[in-house]
Parts: sequence; C-alpha cells; structure tokens
Amino acid sequence: MEQTIKADGMMFTLLAHAKAAAEAGEVPVAAAVTTSDGKVIAMAENRMKRDDNALHHAEMLVISEAMRVRETSRLDDCDLWVTLEPCTMCAGAIAHAQLRRVYFGAFDEKAGAVESGVRFFDQPSCHHRPEIYGGLSATAAADLLRAFFRDRR
Amino acid sequence: MEQTIKADGMMFTLLAHAKAAAEAGEVPVAAAVTTSDGKVIAMAENRMKRDDNALHHAEMLVISEAMRVRETSRLDDCDLWVTLEPCTMCAGAIAHAQLRRVYFGAFDEKAGAVESGVRFFDQPSCHHRPEIYGGLSATAAADLLRAFFRDRR
Repeated sequence: MEQTIKADGMMFTLLAHAKAAAEAGEVPVAAAVTTSDGKVIAMAENRMKRDDNALHHAEMLVISEAMRVRETSRLDDCDLWVTLEPCTMCAGAIAHAQLRRVYFGAFDEKAGAVESGVRFFDQPSCHHRPEIYGGLSATAAADLLRAFFRDRR
Repeated sequence: MEQTIKADGMMFTLLAHAKAAAEAGEVPVAAAVTTSDGKVIAMAENRMKRDDNALHHAEMLVISEAMRVRETSRLDDCDLWVTLEPCTMCAGAIAHAQLRRVYFGAFDEKAGAVESGVRFFDQPSCHHRPEIYGGLSATAAADLLRAFFRDRR
C-alpha cells in the first residue's frame, strides 16, 4: 500500500516534468534515480531537441547525473523511474549502471527494449537484470505522448 | 584497394589511442566519427574509469562530440569507427544517430550487439540499420584487449 502511494507520487511528479519537456518541443519523457528508500538523487527530462543530441534521453542524462552525484558508476543500491519503457540504448545503460530496479510508465511496443523489441534484460548477453515494474500510471503517460505527437501533426 | 588502406590506417590510429587508454587503466577501446570521405570529426577513448561513469564508452563519447561539432543529431552522412564490436547501449546510440556505416575491430561474443547478442541492427525494433564492416584489424584489436585483462589479473 505504502509502496503503491510512493510509486504513484513519483510518476505524478515525473509526468509533470515530462509535460514541461513537451512544452519545450521535446518528446515528453522524464526520469529519476532514487536511493532504495526513495530519496531522489537525480531527475531529468528528454533533451534531444534542446541539446541537438539524439542520445540525450532522460534515462541517459539521469543515470550520468546520479553517477556524478554518487561519485561511482555502480548504482546497484539505486532505482530508475521513467515515464516510458526504455529503448535499446537506455536498457543497455541501465545494465551498465547495475540499477537495482526499473519502474516505468507507458509501454513502448515500437521502440521499447524491456517488454518489447530485444527484451534486453531477458537475454544471455545482458550481464545485469534489474527488477522490472512496468505500466505505472501507464494511461496518463501514454496519453501525454499521444497528445504530443497529435499536436505535432 | 584505396578503401582497404584507408581502413587499415584508421584502425592503426585508433589502436594507438586504445593502447593509451589502457595505460590509464581503461578497457582499451577507441572510436572515431568521420565524414563519408574520411575526414575525422571526432575521436574518443573509453573513459568509464577516469570519469567514474559506466556509460562513457568511446562510441557514446565520440557520437556526442560529433553531434556537437556538426550542430545536428543526425549523422547520416557520417561513419563510426571503433576497435571493438559495439555493445547493446552503443548499438542503440548508433541507430539514434543514424550513422551511415559502422566499421569495427574485434568481435565481442560476450557483450557485442551487432554480430552477437541481440544483433540489434537485424531486429524489427531497430529504426536505422547502418552498413556494417566488422573484423577490421581484428587480431590486433583482440590482442590488445586480451593483454589488458591478463595484466589486470
């Protein structure tokens, strides 16, 4: 119960960040890294457009920032939260960071790599499998993305 | 013929960089991004250890640097050169960058994601498939890695 409230609260916060990103022309995705007891270490939004860098997904930025803050590249006592299922690049980064858990919002059948696509964490070539909790606030997260792409047409 | 000489020259240069990285304690991998006619836009070595950042693979750094220099995140007129088969994270980044070609050295059966592992560029969830040229100076590239891991034991 407490866990559910915590998860809902974090996704609510991240969706507000994702919305702000959309207003700046970014695909609305936001992410956070927390300690295992829920303290936020780093938070980031997509910045591909603003930075002219297709690698600046929210997950990549937040993982790098958490490594900087923690002064270590091993985040095995930390969790990643993100409003959209991570892509192949980000799934690879999550394994490199050895994150404990991944909580994500909307499923991404097209570009996702956790429950869709290469399902990286289920592959023998994946050297670290976090615990996965997908579909958190999935409707709100998906609606936000759908509205963004509809408005761009 | 000219193409072969060009490729050998680039791998020779990158292996020297990779060797320098090993001397700094890094897994010896180096990468470059060039224009389609061979002009070097960016060059990088692994910096995971020096930067305390497990995402700082040579490929990630060199792609970001090339995007910065070119002021665009679309590198579809550029080629990536790297001394080791890219991992899952880096394969995802290569697709995001829409690189024209990937030339790589040693095959990586354990963590590679091009000819091994998830073979990302062959998957339907991959939205961009570069031309792939693997195994360039593969023996020298593999020897360098083997020596590094042997010395660390």
